[in-house]
Amino acid sequence: MNVAIVGASGAVGRELINILDTKPFAFDGVRLFGSRRSAGQTRRICGKDVVIEELTHEPGLFRGVDIAFVSAGAGVSREYAADITAHGTIMIDNSSAFRMDPDVPLVVPEVNPDDAFDAPRRIIANPNCTTIQMVVALRPIHELSPIRRVHVATYQAASGAGASAMDELRQQHADIVAGRPVTVEKFAHQLAYNVIPHIDVFTDNGYTKEEMKMHLETKKIMHAPHLEVSATCVRVPVMRAHSEALWVETESPLTLDRVRAAFRSAPGVEYTDDPASLTYPMPLDLAGCDPVHVGRLRKDLSNPNGISFWAVSDQIRKGAALNAVQIAQLLTAKA
Amino acid sequence: MNVAIVGASGAVGRELINILDTKPFAFDGVRLFGSRRSAGQTRRICGKDVVIEELTHEPGLFRGVDIAFVSAGAGVSREYAADITAHGTIMIDNSSAFRMDPDVPLVVPEVNPDDAFDAPRRIIANPNCTTIQMVVALRPIHELSPIRRVHVATYQAASGAGASAMDELRQQHADIVAGRPVTVEKFAHQLAYNVIPHIDVFTDNGYTKEEMKMHLETKKIMHAPHLEVSATCVRVPVMRAHSEALWVETESPLTLDRVRAAFRSAPGVEYTDDPASLTYPMPLDLAGCDPVHVGRLRKDLSNPNGISFWAVSDQIRKGAALNAVQIAQLLTAKA
Repeated sequence: MNVAIVGASGAVGRELINILDTKPFAFDGVRLFGSRRSAGQTRRICGKDVVIEELTHEPGLFRGVDIAFVSAGAGVSREYAADITAHGTIMIDNSSAFRMDPDVPLVVPEVNPDDAFDAPRRIIANPNCTTIQMVVALRPIHELSPIRRVHVATYQAASGAGASAMDELRQQHADIVAGRPVTVEKFAHQLAYNVIPHIDVFTDNGYTKEEMKMHLETKKIMHAPHLEVSATCVRVPVMRAHSEALWVETESPLTLDRVRAAFRSAPGVEYTDDPASLTYPMPLDLAGCDPVHVGRLRKDLSNPNGISFWAVSDQIRKGAALNAVQIAQLLTAKA
Repeated sequence: MNVAIVGASGAVGRELINILDTKPFAFDGVRLFGSRRSAGQTRRICGKDVVIEELTHEPGLFRGVDIAFVSAGAGVSREYAADITAHGTIMIDNSSAFRMDPDVPLVVPEVNPDDAFDAPRRIIANPNCTTIQMVVALRPIHELSPIRRVHVATYQAASGAGASAMDELRQQHADIVAGRPVTVEKFAHQLAYNVIPHIDVFTDNGYTKEEMKMHLETKKIMHAPHLEVSATCVRVPVMRAHSEALWVETESPLTLDRVRAAFRSAPGVEYTDDPASLTYPMPLDLAGCDPVHVGRLRKDLSNPNGISFWAVSDQIRKGAALNAVQIAQLLTAKA
């Protein structure tokens, strides 16, 4: 069993190295791939220094690789998917390139693990980070009573735009403290001391692609074509965990006790909700943590069939690298 | 016509001084009141240096004051309301002390100006900042078709917790840049690089008081007992303008064109919505501005009778000082 990471120098690639370093499933070798710029650098993983190879169209480059974690943007995924999968490699793709392809399963292991085994193109897509953390929290509710509508406002960290975006936010704050002018490159506007109601590009209906991913991907992952999500996605000056304020309407009204019990027993969910001790999930506390942390559970005051809650998860871990590794665990456990 | 500011040293008091300095209505004298700590300091206003007087229970202290702007917290408002109004002074109160009192009107001049003239206790309450900016944007929609439900997630600036909270956020970032430990006093947790889903204290139903203010005050201001608001109020590391992501359900479905036209002609609303040029309201741009800026207008994908939009307004101006001055303008225009 050999694995590869494509995009080894990015924020998600680095986290994949961290996670694989803990040997979350049995594998023998690891290969790392990157752009020409990264090629030749080494990364320490599982006690060895591994040299980053340049990603090219060289025939047979991925021969002998069983699972390739690909996280270098949708353009790279589209361009290299055929090369990567040519000799039987399963490609677990972190980009948006194939998520809505009917021949590509879109998998969150806590929600739709079986879909991972129906991958005719040998591509399995990792959902968008905001969608992953939302569906992990929605699944236990949906099992109590089918969900009809979700309203969700996000508070998304800089990490979603990559390692260089995190550097930019840090640099903006350093510049402000030093009284220097601020540089803006990675986001459309200054993020320090600001919130930006715009992630990814705008679509014709006024929603951004990020918002439409939450709408479309949720239906596919949850096998729920009539579950309608309306999202407002907002970038906030936080480093790496995403937060979401959610309102969920179910077919039947649910008591908070039932929802609480469902959260407590749900895989991948950590229920953290104790207002008396001012305990609720916050992104600053949860960078580097695995579960989707849920709290602030209460009735929707505007809807007898509604509940409201708050969910926080590390965007780079469960929102990307960890979910991809969990998909690999599914595949290797069955193999 | 004489006016007074109680709480002259606070964030809202300072902004009241700035606004009164522009002579927004005709008055002769200004008196300033503060705590013992502030008393004796002077503030420049309307070309004069005015000494801050200590707020005490001395009988007749407010004699000759026609309108007192009071912004020193609910405790001070409760303790001094009788003193302030004893000799005919109208108290425009920025605190939450009297907002739900049936004998105290709760006024946003763009929404319910007439209520200001029915103030048997000579107290007029300024609503909570998040509610003010929301109802200014809701009113034009409610006139097209009555609003049934509102879901709102807020992104609230440090300013809502006062001038010292803004200083704390600035200091936290300076400490992080310098590698020093961070001090937390004004908020329950570190705000720099974080978001905190908790503003004001928790109530029995799991909502915070801040969230319940949006629920209860909106009904009173809009004379709409069946308009149900469910809010999630979140502090974000922004200095002084609040943002809100809103979903509004109306009795009849509305086209975006009608809502857009209503926003464009609504008093106090600035419609700023051009995705093509990446133009949408953002708090960093709008500190110090008067209107409620609205953008990101689109259909609610989960509800045929729903629309979604984004609203940003300066918390200290329209959210507090400006609204109070506008109430005074109503009173003086009629007088």
